[in-house]
Amino acid sequence: MLQLNIVILAAGAGKRMHSSLPKVLHTLADRPLLAHVINTARMLSPSKIFVIIGHDGEKIKQSIIGDDLRWIIQKQQLGTGHAVMQALPQLDHAGLTLILYGDVPLVSSYTLRQLVNAANGDNCVMLSAILENPFGYGRVVRDLESSEITAIVEQKDASVEQQGIHEINTGIMLIPNAYLHKWLPNIENNNTQLEYYLTDIIALAVKSGVSVISSQAENFWEVKGVNNKCQLAELERLFQQHCANKLLDAGVSLIDPARIDIRGELLCGSDVEIDINCIFEGTVKLGNFVRIGANCILKNVTVASGSIINPFSMVEDAEIGENCKIGPYARIRPGTRLASKVQIGNFVEVKNSQIGTGSKANHLSYIGDSGIGKNVNIGAGTITCNYDGVNKHHTIIEDDVFIGSDTQLIAPVKISKGTTIGAGSTITKETPENQLTLSRSKQISVVGWRRPKKQTIK
Amino acid sequence: MLQLNIVILAAGAGKRMHSSLPKVLHTLADRPLLAHVINTARMLSPSKIFVIIGHDGEKIKQSIIGDDLRWIIQKQQLGTGHAVMQALPQLDHAGLTLILYGDVPLVSSYTLRQLVNAANGDNCVMLSAILENPFGYGRVVRDLESSEITAIVEQKDASVEQQGIHEINTGIMLIPNAYLHKWLPNIENNNTQLEYYLTDIIALAVKSGVSVISSQAENFWEVKGVNNKCQLAELERLFQQHCANKLLDAGVSLIDPARIDIRGELLCGSDVEIDINCIFEGTVKLGNFVRIGANCILKNVTVASGSIINPFSMVEDAEIGENCKIGPYARIRPGTRLASKVQIGNFVEVKNSQIGTGSKANHLSYIGDSGIGKNVNIGAGTITCNYDGVNKHHTIIEDDVFIGSDTQLIAPVKISKGTTIGAGSTITKETPENQLTLSRSKQISVVGWRRPKKQTIK
Amino acid sequence: MLQLNIVILAAGAGKRMHSSLPKVLHTLADRPLLAHVINTARMLSPSKIFVIIGHDGEKIKQSIIGDDLRWIIQKQQLGTGHAVMQALPQLDHAGLTLILYGDVPLVSSYTLRQLVNAANGDNCVMLSAILENPFGYGRVVRDLESSEITAIVEQKDASVEQQGIHEINTGIMLIPNAYLHKWLPNIENNNTQLEYYLTDIIALAVKSGVSVISSQAENFWEVKGVNNKCQLAELERLFQQHCANKLLDAGVSLIDPARIDIRGELLCGSDVEIDINCIFEGTVKLGNFVRIGANCILKNVTVASGSIINPFSMVEDAEIGENCKIGPYARIRPGTRLASKVQIGNFVEVKNSQIGTGSKANHLSYIGDSGIGKNVNIGAGTITCNYDGVNKHHTIIEDDVFIGSDTQLIAPVKISKGTTIGAGSTITKETPENQLTLSRSKQISVVGWRRPKKQTIK
Repeated sequence: MLQLNIVILAAGAGKRMHSSLPKVLHTLADRPLLAHVINTARMLSPSKIFVIIGHDGEKIKQSIIGDDLRWIIQKQQLGTGHAVMQALPQLDHAGLTLILYGDVPLVSSYTLRQLVNAANGDNCVMLSAILENPFGYGRVVRDLESSEITAIVEQKDASVEQQGIHEINTGIMLIPNAYLHKWLPNIENNNTQLEYYLTDIIALAVKSGVSVISSQAENFWEVKGVNNKCQLAELERLFQQHCANKLLDAGVSLIDPARIDIRGELLCGSDVEIDINCIFEGTVKLGNFVRIGANCILKNVTVASGSIINPFSMVEDAEIGENCKIGPYARIRPGTRLASKVQIGNFVEVKNSQIGTGSKANHLSYIGDSGIGKNVNIGAGTITCNYDGVNKHHTIIEDDVFIGSDTQLIAPVKISKGTTIGAGSTITKETPENQLTLSRSKQISVVGWRRPKKQTIK
Repeated sequence: MLQLNIVILAAGAGKRMHSSLPKVLHTLADRPLLAHVINTARMLSPSKIFVIIGHDGEKIKQSIIGDDLRWIIQKQQLGTGHAVMQALPQLDHAGLTLILYGDVPLVSSYTLRQLVNAANGDNCVMLSAILENPFGYGRVVRDLESSEITAIVEQKDASVEQQGIHEINTGIMLIPNAYLHKWLPNIENNNTQLEYYLTDIIALAVKSGVSVISSQAENFWEVKGVNNKCQLAELERLFQQHCANKLLDAGVSLIDPARIDIRGELLCGSDVEIDINCIFEGTVKLGNFVRIGANCILKNVTVASGSIINPFSMVEDAEIGENCKIGPYARIRPGTRLASKVQIGNFVEVKNSQIGTGSKANHLSYIGDSGIGKNVNIGAGTITCNYDGVNKHHTIIEDDVFIGSDTQLIAPVKISKGTTIGAGSTITKETPENQLTLSRSKQISVVGWRRPKKQTIK
Repeated sequence: MLQLNIVILAAGAGKRMHSSLPKVLHTLADRPLLAHVINTARMLSPSKIFVIIGHDGEKIKQSIIGDDLRWIIQKQQLGTGHAVMQALPQLDHAGLTLILYGDVPLVSSYTLRQLVNAANGDNCVMLSAILENPFGYGRVVRDLESSEITAIVEQKDASVEQQGIHEINTGIMLIPNAYLHKWLPNIENNNTQLEYYLTDIIALAVKSGVSVISSQAENFWEVKGVNNKCQLAELERLFQQHCANKLLDAGVSLIDPARIDIRGELLCGSDVEIDINCIFEGTVKLGNFVRIGANCILKNVTVASGSIINPFSMVEDAEIGENCKIGPYARIRPGTRLASKVQIGNFVEVKNSQIGTGSKANHLSYIGDSGIGKNVNIGAGTITCNYDGVNKHHTIIEDDVFIGSDTQLIAPVKISKGTTIGAGSTITKETPENQLTLSRSKQISVVGWRRPKKQTIK
């Protein structure tokens, strides 16, 4: 394969986004538009990736990670041709350059590979699209006999006949570097906008007798750009629909494909079922027969086979073992690792804790910075007091412990194997094994006590 | 501008709603249909607003507030013309009357102003609409040469040619009062329904040589009426879509415009992001860079810049300061005011309380009727016992207090500046400043204690 | 009516489902596809129902309950005709046989009754459908003059003219048993698949001079089959849309008909309102004026008139009395019965408990295995300690009790009439009536106490 340079145009201010953020930093599926494009660009293994940024460029450079990226500042925004010119001195002399756009986030590596495959080193390859309503786009004009591309004609310049053409120019193109070096300096800005248009490259190619061919995107939404929040939302939905369809094709049961959001990567085993309105962020792996209830939010989570996440649960940066039952209304926070058959129930928060096989915390508890053994039963309302105001301390609960309801475990503390804690206890020191430990005041009743009366405002 | 009377027809029983509620009291975006129309009517600054109500009128009068409204009872429902006739004695003699419908809730003030602007004091102006499928509607028949309106022809009376007309009569019209007084008494009911149709006014106008012109609604759904729950749900969605589009146009990021519900007014600063499935009720103001997580419900809330409302939170009648973190699963109830950098975490309920800068209640707590200072840390499971069975009492927590987990603060009580409360305490009286205060029983263990055994049913 | 046999074809492996589960066990609206078909079949009161199952048949037999079902194993899958042949020995000699498909789940009893009504005992009746795009389906060819059905022509065999036919064969058909016994053994498998096609019955009927007529489904989605997860999800949505429309027609207010899931039967009184994103499972009955807030999940629940279920609540196997207020964030678990005017508030879990008129548990509590009287106030953070590690015990709370916050009631225990429990108490034995009972340690303060300091890592 020919050596590939990629130039990503990302200098546009994006005023129509009505935001203080540069346009390409707005997110689709929780990732900046530009990051989508860079990610796709990398899949083509280019020798160099240039990103052309504008006056907001510093913000972009801070947000997008990548030592492989070559940032180029375009001080004035004088058109797409002008943008690519900024990279020209650093472009290789041999090989090809692919032009991408930071605000066209969903072009796929598959589509781009087809583009690259269509290149022979001497031709120009443009990505075109067939639109039902091509109004407003530059039309791809072809010779009627040879059907070779002869021009790109903008809407305002198109004849009535040309306006009937449905094939449009997406702006994405692949040009031999030798030609770029030759033609780009010759592009002119004698138009009303006084801008240098990259599209003129096509005219120069045709003029020079260089063949221009086109390739098309697999999906129509791959070539859609984002200019405002409406288009961003529309593209978000198209992308989510695409993600949902991929899951369905792989055999995942989605109760409503229009009500699932994948913001990252969701990997599913067989016979996984996902109920309505769930959100997946980062990398989420679901084992065989995993069921995710309605309205759950999972971020960077591994759920092993047979586990059930009940509705209204949030799980983040955690590992859930096999055959666990989580939720409903469970909040599992970062650093949590659950072994198999663990149950975490309603209104329970778990943070930075390891919980052993078969242990349960089913009701209204806070478990933080804890190491919990096997077959432990944590009663309702149990709280690990892990924070003294400045430091976080660790709680150890060994195997077969039974913690009575409404107990406070004041960390650092160890609850030894087989301990039973009486309800309502405040445990401040290590408990002996296999004994009942508690702290409790005597129950007393007050004879003749009268209930408070309604206070009247004087 | 000419003096304006507005007559709103709201007497229809609405049997197809299958409800005990009068039709115009059914709600769209959480507000009665009639209230939408009255609200829009008021924007035109009319001199008088008449509302024609039927046998269920008392319920309507109780539900709709407005001293400016003149209620007129139409004892028998004998058609739209008959309904307007009830207002005739009270209509001005000069100026214009605009006819609106209590079950056509979404006609906009913009559309109605265009109608009013088209009036010259001597012509009749009707609101028409162009429908792709006009079947069933009265068609607007125009003179082929002058294109002046010559008649409204109902579906059943329309010739094949007239059936091909796509412009239909919406029923909303603006008539000079002088003509109303003259023509309305002449409308006849010699039809199969024995009803008096307001539409006949148009025929009388044409007959009298008075010019009839039309104006059209900005959006097609403005003229849609509600006759059953299906239409109501459809209109709700169209309206919500419209609200979502307005937010997007203003630069708000909506992750799914089809999954947001605005039931009132949502005002957003710049760079606001709203995740899926959120509901906004009453007046909600979101400052710059505010982020609302999935599945949140906000009602009459102000959220200052930089604050984040995490998923599954409900906030009602509250003020949230800058850079606060709320939720997930936080319930903020009426009367709550949070200063900046306050954190309210999961399974925490706050009611009628003021909380100072930088204070936190992150887990499983109930804070009611409290005044809390700065830099206070409320441990997990803390409960302000504000209710003695008949009265509510106040809790004061001064600056820099640390409340250990699972503490009960029995109001009225004051926790003085710098106090530390030991976990599991029941605090019944004022604490001294900067000291550790607690109530705690000794931790004891019972040697030789045996766990309960499984009871067998005899 | 003629005696009816029904044969349901359910032997297909369903490889395109990418699942270890037999295809007909995949669920639509939370019920296996096959169960939908069997349920509909039963509504026709057939004398016999045969279910043809394949190699995965045991799993199917275990999942589908019904003594009335006659399971027949088709060892090799050699086509639809072959499948019906397996039942032939057991089919009656008189009467009719209706052929249904385990993967065509939504055909309605109404549609099937029309089919049966069209039978005269000597004709064949097939269920056809009119599709906008009939590509891929077998076309129903009719005599141009008599318009009688003369053949079913498969896509690949259809002439250009026949490809223009929009009426297609659904496969569902009703054949006199006498003919089935005569024709079925004569079906041949001389095709590329070497399969026996049931469709050939139609050709044999025509050949024998037996009249073939067609009937059509009420809704187009009734005849749709499920071959992959995409089709399953699509059918789920069509079905849910249908359920939503039925509710709307009956006068139920749905805020968004596209965001409601009915997985069973939802019966509503008048003036019921259901907010977005709710799920109903099993049999749910909602009385007059019941309001269900956003994101609620109800399963096998009765809610009496005037009650409100606030957002984010889950209620399962429970009875809710009149004018109750539940939630938000309430979890009502099986075995709960609430009398009228009961309030269960946020982060409260109730399980297997009866609660009397006017009683309240508004905050952060766990109530399990309890019998609670009238006018009881359960303070925030109250926990019934019903579990000793092996046994569950009962708690009795009599009328007019006031339980202070953060109290543990260690079951078995009885809180007598009129008792007041002080906050933070651990109650282990029966309380006397109308007295204050509590267990509490003295509040002490420690002079000179210093807060912990930030630990530095050495």
